[in-house]
Amino acid sequence: MALQAAGRRSLVDTVVDALRAQLAAGEWPVGSRIPTEHALAEQLQVGRNTVREAVRVLVHAGMLRSRQGEGTFVVSTADPGDIMRGVQRAGIRDVLELRIALEAEAARLAALRHEPADLTRMRAALDAQSGLADAAGQPHAENLELYADHDIAFHMAVVEAAHNAALTATYGWFSSSVREALVTALDDRAMPRVSHGDHRAVVDAIAAGDPEAAERATRALLEKPMRAVEALLSAR
Amino acid sequence: MALQAAGRRSLVDTVVDALRAQLAAGEWPVGSRIPTEHALAEQLQVGRNTVREAVRVLVHAGMLRSRQGEGTFVVSTADPGDIMRGVQRAGIRDVLELRIALEAEAARLAALRHEPADLTRMRAALDAQSGLADAAGQPHAENLELYADHDIAFHMAVVEAAHNAALTATYGWFSSSVREALVTALDDRAMPRVSHGDHRAVVDAIAAGDPEAAERATRALLEKPMRAVEALLSAR
Repeated sequence: MALQAAGRRSLVDTVVDALRAQLAAGEWPVGSRIPTEHALAEQLQVGRNTVREAVRVLVHAGMLRSRQGEGTFVVSTADPGDIMRGVQRAGIRDVLELRIALEAEAARLAALRHEPADLTRMRAALDAQSGLADAAGQPHAENLELYADHDIAFHMAVVEAAHNAALTATYGWFSSSVREALVTALDDRAMPRVSHGDHRAVVDAIAAGDPEAAERATRALLEKPMRAVEALLSAR
Repeated sequence: MALQAAGRRSLVDTVVDALRAQLAAGEWPVGSRIPTEHALAEQLQVGRNTVREAVRVLVHAGMLRSRQGEGTFVVSTADPGDIMRGVQRAGIRDVLELRIALEAEAARLAALRHEPADLTRMRAALDAQSGLADAAGQPHAENLELYADHDIAFHMAVVEAAHNAALTATYGWFSSSVREALVTALDDRAMPRVSHGDHRAVVDAIAAGDPEAAERATRALLEKPMRAVEALLSAR
C-alpha cells in the first residue's frame, strides 16, 4: 500500500513512523541489516529520497547505523527520543527521584572504585563553592550561576568516580534536565539552603571506602531539594 | 560562512551538527524559539529544504518541537541519541549496574506506593514462570523464550509499582537493552539459575511496605546475573 502524508505531517514523518513500528515489532532485530533503500521504497510505495531522509532521522536518533558499502544496521529497537519525551512528560518529583537513584548508586560504587584524582575534583568543587558564599554558607546573589556550576561539577565528579560509562552518560542528561526543571519550578526564595557539611559527608564516606555510608550521605544530601519540591507540589 | 558536505556525510548531517552545537552551547535555551527556516538558511548559507530536513531530525530526536503557526521550540539541549550511543558503548557490567540502580530504587518506592493490582501482576508473572519450569525450578528448553517474557513482566511490574513515570520510561529501555546484551554475552549454560525464592522475597518486602527490605531483596536477586557477567569478563 502507498503511504500518504497525513494532515500537516510530511511523508518523511510517515515513513519514519512506519520504520519505527517495524523495528518495535521486532521485524529487524538488533544487529541485523535492514532492506536496501530500493526495497524499502518499493515496499512502502514512496520515493528513494523519502526513504533516505527517514533512515537519516533514525540514524541520528540512535536506532540505526550506516556502514559504508555494507548497508544499514539496527542498533536499537527502542527510540531514545521517545524515552526522553516520556521523562519530560513526567513530573519534577519523578525526575528528581530518578536522579537520586542514579546518584545514590554512583556514590556506592565510587566508594569502591574511586581514584585519588576523583577525590581531588570533588574537594576542589566544594572549595570553589565556599569561596563564593557568605559566612552562613549562602552564595552571594551575583555568584548564583557560578555557584550552581560548581555544584554540578561536584555531583558529576561523584558520578564519574563510579567509573561506569553507562551511569555517567545517563546521569549527564538528568543533571542538566533536572537543573532546568528545578530552576523553573522554584524561585530563589524557595531554593533549599545548601549545607557544606552534607557535601563533605559524601566525600568523606567515599574516601573511607564505605559504600553504605556513601549511599546514605547522598540520600541525605538530596533529601533537601526533594522536600522543597514536595512542599511546592502540596502548596499548589 | 557556507557549510559544506564533508566526505560521505551529507550537507543535512553537517547542518544537524551545526544546530546541535548551537544548542549544546546554550545559544537557544530550553523553552526558547529557534530562528525561522529562512533565517537559519541565511545564517548557514544553505537551502531552506536542507534546514527543514535538519530540523526534522532534531524534532524526532526529542531536542526540538514544532508548533503549528508558532515556530520551533527547544525541548532539550542534550541529544538522547548521544546518550543512547554512550550507554551502548559502555560494557555489559556497566549497563547491568545501571539497571540495578533503577530497579533497587523502584523496589524501595514500590514498598511505599504499591496498589493491590501491582502485587497481583507481580505474583501472576511468577506463577506463570513456575508453570514453565521443572521441579528444580529450571525452565524447559522449549519454554525459554516465554519464560524470559514472564521474567521481564515481573521486573516491569516492580518498576511500575513505584508509580514514577520517569523511572518507568528509562527502565523500559534498559530492560530490553540489557536483555539483548545478556543473551548475546552469555550462552545458555552460563545463564545463572533463577531462584523463585529470590523473586518471592522482593514481592513480600514490597507487600509488607518495607522499603529497605525491598531494596535489599532486589539487590540480592540481581547479584546472580552480575556475578555471571563478572565471571565471564574475568575468564576472557
